[in-house]
Amino acid sequence: MKSFIVNKNIMRYEIGNPIDTDAVVNKGSKEVESSIPFFEVQIKDEIRLNLVMGKNNKIYGLGQNIRGINKRGWIYESFCSDDPNHSPDKKSLYGAHNFFIVDGCEKFGVYIDFASKITYDVGYIKKDELNVTIDGKDANIYIITGSGLREITKKFLDIIGKGYVPPKWAFGYLQSRWSYPTGNEVERIANEFIERKIPCDGICLDLDYMEDFKDFTLSEERFPNFKGLVQRLKDKGIKIIPIIDAGVKIEKDYKVYEEGIKNSYFTLDKEGKPFVGAVWPGKVHFPDFLNKDARLWFGMQYKSLIEMGVEGFWNDMNEPAIFYSENGIDKAYKKIDELKKQELNIHTFFQLKDSVNNINNSIDDYKSMYHNTEKGIVNHYNVHNIYGYNMTKSASEGFNKIDNNKRFLLFSRASAIGAHRYGGIWTGDNSSWWEHLIMNIKMLPSINMCGFIYSGADTCGFGSNVDSELATRWNQFSIFAPLYRNHAGRGTRNQEPFAFDIETEEIIRNTIKFRYAMIPYLYSEYMKSINSSDMLIAPLCFEYDDKHASQVEDQLLVGDSLMIAPIYEPNKRGRYVYLPEDMLLWKVKDYNNKILEVINKGHNYIDVNIDEFCVFIRKNKIFVHGEAAQSTEKLNNKTLNLIAFVENKAEYNLYDDDGISKDYKKDKKSNLKIIITVENEKYNIKIENTGNNEVKKLNVTIVTAYGKEIKEIVNI
Amino acid sequence: MKSFIVNKNIMRYEIGNPIDTDAVVNKGSKEVESSIPFFEVQIKDEIRLNLVMGKNNKIYGLGQNIRGINKRGWIYESFCSDDPNHSPDKKSLYGAHNFFIVDGCEKFGVYIDFASKITYDVGYIKKDELNVTIDGKDANIYIITGSGLREITKKFLDIIGKGYVPPKWAFGYLQSRWSYPTGNEVERIANEFIERKIPCDGICLDLDYMEDFKDFTLSEERFPNFKGLVQRLKDKGIKIIPIIDAGVKIEKDYKVYEEGIKNSYFTLDKEGKPFVGAVWPGKVHFPDFLNKDARLWFGMQYKSLIEMGVEGFWNDMNEPAIFYSENGIDKAYKKIDELKKQELNIHTFFQLKDSVNNINNSIDDYKSMYHNTEKGIVNHYNVHNIYGYNMTKSASEGFNKIDNNKRFLLFSRASAIGAHRYGGIWTGDNSSWWEHLIMNIKMLPSINMCGFIYSGADTCGFGSNVDSELATRWNQFSIFAPLYRNHAGRGTRNQEPFAFDIETEEIIRNTIKFRYAMIPYLYSEYMKSINSSDMLIAPLCFEYDDKHASQVEDQLLVGDSLMIAPIYEPNKRGRYVYLPEDMLLWKVKDYNNKILEVINKGHNYIDVNIDEFCVFIRKNKIFVHGEAAQSTEKLNNKTLNLIAFVENKAEYNLYDDDGISKDYKKDKKSNLKIIITVENEKYNIKIENTGNNEVKKLNVTIVTAYGKEIKEIVNI
Repeated sequence: MKSFIVNKNIMRYEIGNPIDTDAVVNKGSKEVESSIPFFEVQIKDEIRLNLVMGKNNKIYGLGQNIRGINKRGWIYESFCSDDPNHSPDKKSLYGAHNFFIVDGCEKFGVYIDFASKITYDVGYIKKDELNVTIDGKDANIYIITGSGLREITKKFLDIIGKGYVPPKWAFGYLQSRWSYPTGNEVERIANEFIERKIPCDGICLDLDYMEDFKDFTLSEERFPNFKGLVQRLKDKGIKIIPIIDAGVKIEKDYKVYEEGIKNSYFTLDKEGKPFVGAVWPGKVHFPDFLNKDARLWFGMQYKSLIEMGVEGFWNDMNEPAIFYSENGIDKAYKKIDELKKQELNIHTFFQLKDSVNNINNSIDDYKSMYHNTEKGIVNHYNVHNIYGYNMTKSASEGFNKIDNNKRFLLFSRASAIGAHRYGGIWTGDNSSWWEHLIMNIKMLPSINMCGFIYSGADTCGFGSNVDSELATRWNQFSIFAPLYRNHAGRGTRNQEPFAFDIETEEIIRNTIKFRYAMIPYLYSEYMKSINSSDMLIAPLCFEYDDKHASQVEDQLLVGDSLMIAPIYEPNKRGRYVYLPEDMLLWKVKDYNNKILEVINKGHNYIDVNIDEFCVFIRKNKIFVHGEAAQSTEKLNNKTLNLIAFVENKAEYNLYDDDGISKDYKKDKKSNLKIIITVENEKYNIKIENTGNNEVKKLNVTIVTAYGKEIKEIVNI
Repeated sequence: MKSFIVNKNIMRYEIGNPIDTDAVVNKGSKEVESSIPFFEVQIKDEIRLNLVMGKNNKIYGLGQNIRGINKRGWIYESFCSDDPNHSPDKKSLYGAHNFFIVDGCEKFGVYIDFASKITYDVGYIKKDELNVTIDGKDANIYIITGSGLREITKKFLDIIGKGYVPPKWAFGYLQSRWSYPTGNEVERIANEFIERKIPCDGICLDLDYMEDFKDFTLSEERFPNFKGLVQRLKDKGIKIIPIIDAGVKIEKDYKVYEEGIKNSYFTLDKEGKPFVGAVWPGKVHFPDFLNKDARLWFGMQYKSLIEMGVEGFWNDMNEPAIFYSENGIDKAYKKIDELKKQELNIHTFFQLKDSVNNINNSIDDYKSMYHNTEKGIVNHYNVHNIYGYNMTKSASEGFNKIDNNKRFLLFSRASAIGAHRYGGIWTGDNSSWWEHLIMNIKMLPSINMCGFIYSGADTCGFGSNVDSELATRWNQFSIFAPLYRNHAGRGTRNQEPFAFDIETEEIIRNTIKFRYAMIPYLYSEYMKSINSSDMLIAPLCFEYDDKHASQVEDQLLVGDSLMIAPIYEPNKRGRYVYLPEDMLLWKVKDYNNKILEVINKGHNYIDVNIDEFCVFIRKNKIFVHGEAAQSTEKLNNKTLNLIAFVENKAEYNLYDDDGISKDYKKDKKSNLKIIITVENEKYNIKIENTGNNEVKKLNVTIVTAYGKEIKEIVNI
């Protein structure tokens, strides 16, 4: 083991000869004598890190995973998995996010830079033990120290490089469904949004826009004149966002297939032939995203769609999902033939079921696949977790080459830390379960900790059928997630905002309009998170260190000014809210109607009707919002509204930029600084404008600590 | 449709020519002119009841089902189903409990006496509509009016007849596992409980005690000298409780099979031959429990085990579960052969999975099975929901014949209303999920509403692996359920109280000891519920009609004196509790250590450490408890402890009887009435003893409304 100083808070421990995942941009090169602190470390065929936890120790992080913000009490397996049943006994979802913080007498962060399976037993088998098992002998382990949870997280985010920045329109509402099967249907849906005055910025296309599920093809039958469709909708403010799957259909004369074969761009089997798996299109090869040339080649494929006007994509099935391999299906059929000859008993009956049910995503298949990397041939199992990551990178590299100063929307299902620099993620195929709404709430801060700030769940749920109340409550939460997409699975009930009843439609319309009004704030906070390597959505205890804050897992901080407390249970018309300090409650029904109330520090029960959601403005903070519009490009922020909850001094920096280019990296960005101070019971508003040419007027509502409202208009 | 007056609160509407399920004991015979009130009724091939619900209408009842106490927002199918995956999208569990209450401006109860599928869309497809679809043309519908939720429930419980009364030892702790595979292992487990001083009254035997899963056989190899084992353990206070499955193995010379064949006691197929299904033993016939002779015949089979000293049974797989039929498996194999010839695509791949996954419990199989009833041959589908019910009745009829004054323990997986008179139920194959602990909490009051007072869930969860914290919290809840059984599935982690760590063992030991100390109260309340046709475990809003009470679904009333507020989330060390009135909190760590605190009416946050649970004693109520013991037969209640929270007057009736015979029906029971009154700040305790010869001394702790404790000793 070698030890390297990354910076004064971070040490890297290099065990064996690790694969370079490129997850960390600052690895440190100054070697020193040191050994991994805190843990008992065992290095054999696998690496084990063991720690005895104190009764009050909490473990935060691990990104996209089930359960709470405090991860204690379960086993998690970091192994990108396509499993649509996110039940409470699942150990893996789609992402591999190996950063966590141990919060005890000593607080420290751990990042394990490793491309295959890691198992975390967080006080599950033995309640006081944290056992980490890295399935290999080669890994980089980073130990990050700092005084608090947020500081440690920031230090970590700092070494993995700045996160992905989508275009501003990606903060609009996105509608999706598997599938809107024809161009006509897509257009009908778009028009519904417009006619019903429900803001919308994009419609995602699922599998059926393609010809036979072939990447970068278009169904002539269902989507004739695709370019025209894209343009017509774009004129209305709605972008088309097609899906791209990892697997490339094996089909003679299909361009992508032929090119891949010709250039050996596909992953290999044991004999060195292209590996054959089966996914939606039937038999496919998998692009070898770990091969630099193959990665860029695939990335350039997006060009055909971009030339038709497409500005955003979602990458799917890139764990990679493998429905079956020839070997797997042969084994299954063989087993079935064997069983057929017998009278089934207790054991053989379940063998019959397993024979078919264990075909998908089998470890055998992963272990039979190979990558041709710069360092030579590598077995897929050893790099499994960075396959989806490199598909995201592939698209991003392609985009850069195609139009290097343009921001594209890109989000992926599979991911690993590192991919956060190239795209966002959604949380995969959840279900229309109330349990998945609260899981969504608890998962977002953990995902933020791992660098994926542009993220969100399938609002209303992908699998199962949603009802109007769950749809309402889910929308009322998702407006606070950067990626706000409503997506539904095949065969499930329609769940567009207008799919229910007039009352529900009106509530969801108002909810989405609040989102659009909030975009100045959300975008500003998003960009500041990226630029300062910080989280956007954080648990209460990352900001407040009182005894109770860490018990609260159903309230979240959104940016610097807001706390939210969503309703996530059916038939509930209120909830308990814990306030670590006095806050200003805006119970939103309609963003044009502000009824503000100071809520005192401590435990509170708040009534929340079905048409309401709670926004809490923190003490000495300012919430900025504008007016809603049908789409982000129509947002007019000449006049902004400020709600300031001021005890002594509140300050807000409103970041903005063009929202479409990467010029912000060259300092083409603006900052409108608003400072509100109190002197002799008089409130002074000071503005410092650095480059904002849009905002001309501020309608300021100051609420004092005692609930008195003062209205001011400030011209800029 | 005919209408009958049952009594002044209840009308019966007879549609068509309904099957007599024998669920109701007082059906009413005075015919009058009337039509079903409240609902819009459609009678065609199926019967539909439609109701527009007001915004604040709530729907209670439907017994064993997923989701909340208020059933609004989901579709439920009343169709006894063996599905071990109780995920949030399931519509049916094991029971068919067709009683519900509509709570709005008008409050009324509805009981649908029907033996096949009923679907309840409770504001799911349309949020304001209740749509009930009865899958048939013949049904009895009862409409029950009354002033309150509890009164309506009591009126209903009154017409379905008094509930099952188990022996008192059935209120002890029961340990179970699939499986303790040998007699030696069972004995070892029993000894562990005794050595570790953890109270226990029974060990359940799952499948493996039998020879090849054959009902009423014993494995000579694994359970030699079964009678000796039963006796040895009984001497230690631990009863053996074997499982009995519905299916009878087809095996020449197997006595039960041969008798069944000889007497035509099995259900039939289309051709009139015994229906063949496959379950654990492989191919089986199903006893025709709807045939009176077959039912009694099967009931008498229990005799062989009873003669070996067995006093309790659990009936399983009686929905009935059918893994496959010959027809079903042939169809699956045929489908697979067809698919084998093709390259699988998106559709055919899922067809392959479905071909195997849809074999179990197929409607086709149910529709291919027939019963030979007094009224002629009946298709199983039409009486599906009363099959398990009649298996319970079968056992009960057998017990009566074998020893007509003895109480046997009996609980079943499948059930329908009516079966509550013959046995208890457990809630089937749940999982070791936190989500199933809260589901358990919310389900019990609904089950109580439908008459199944002796009920409980598999504590710690059946499927999946439990961890020490979930095990602890689940035990802390289950001590309040009449049926308190810890049961685990095959291949899952051990979950006996001593399977974790010393600290957890100590907490669970103390928890179980509290249960044993509480048995005088629990038994008294249980018996009073049965005798007065009341619930034992009720939602808050059944007792308190303030605005907030109906929002509370995670606190329950247990008997007349107690309210509980369990912890049901991981890593939680406290929770919010709503008190509709001032209550006295006993935060129990150890029942010998009483720290009592008056908690004020309203919303409260209560810290609850992992080794604690909350017992609230209601205002002007008395909680009675004794001392724990290793088993119920060793309970010594010469001295009882009373905690009374008294503002002006508290009264308690302590019911007791011999706990083993049915003599209580002949008035062989006792009542110890305790009346505490306040006069001029002096507390007077008055005792009226009607036949209790056991209790000699009462240690009384009176806590005043202001929290002052007064200790008194009363000799009787």
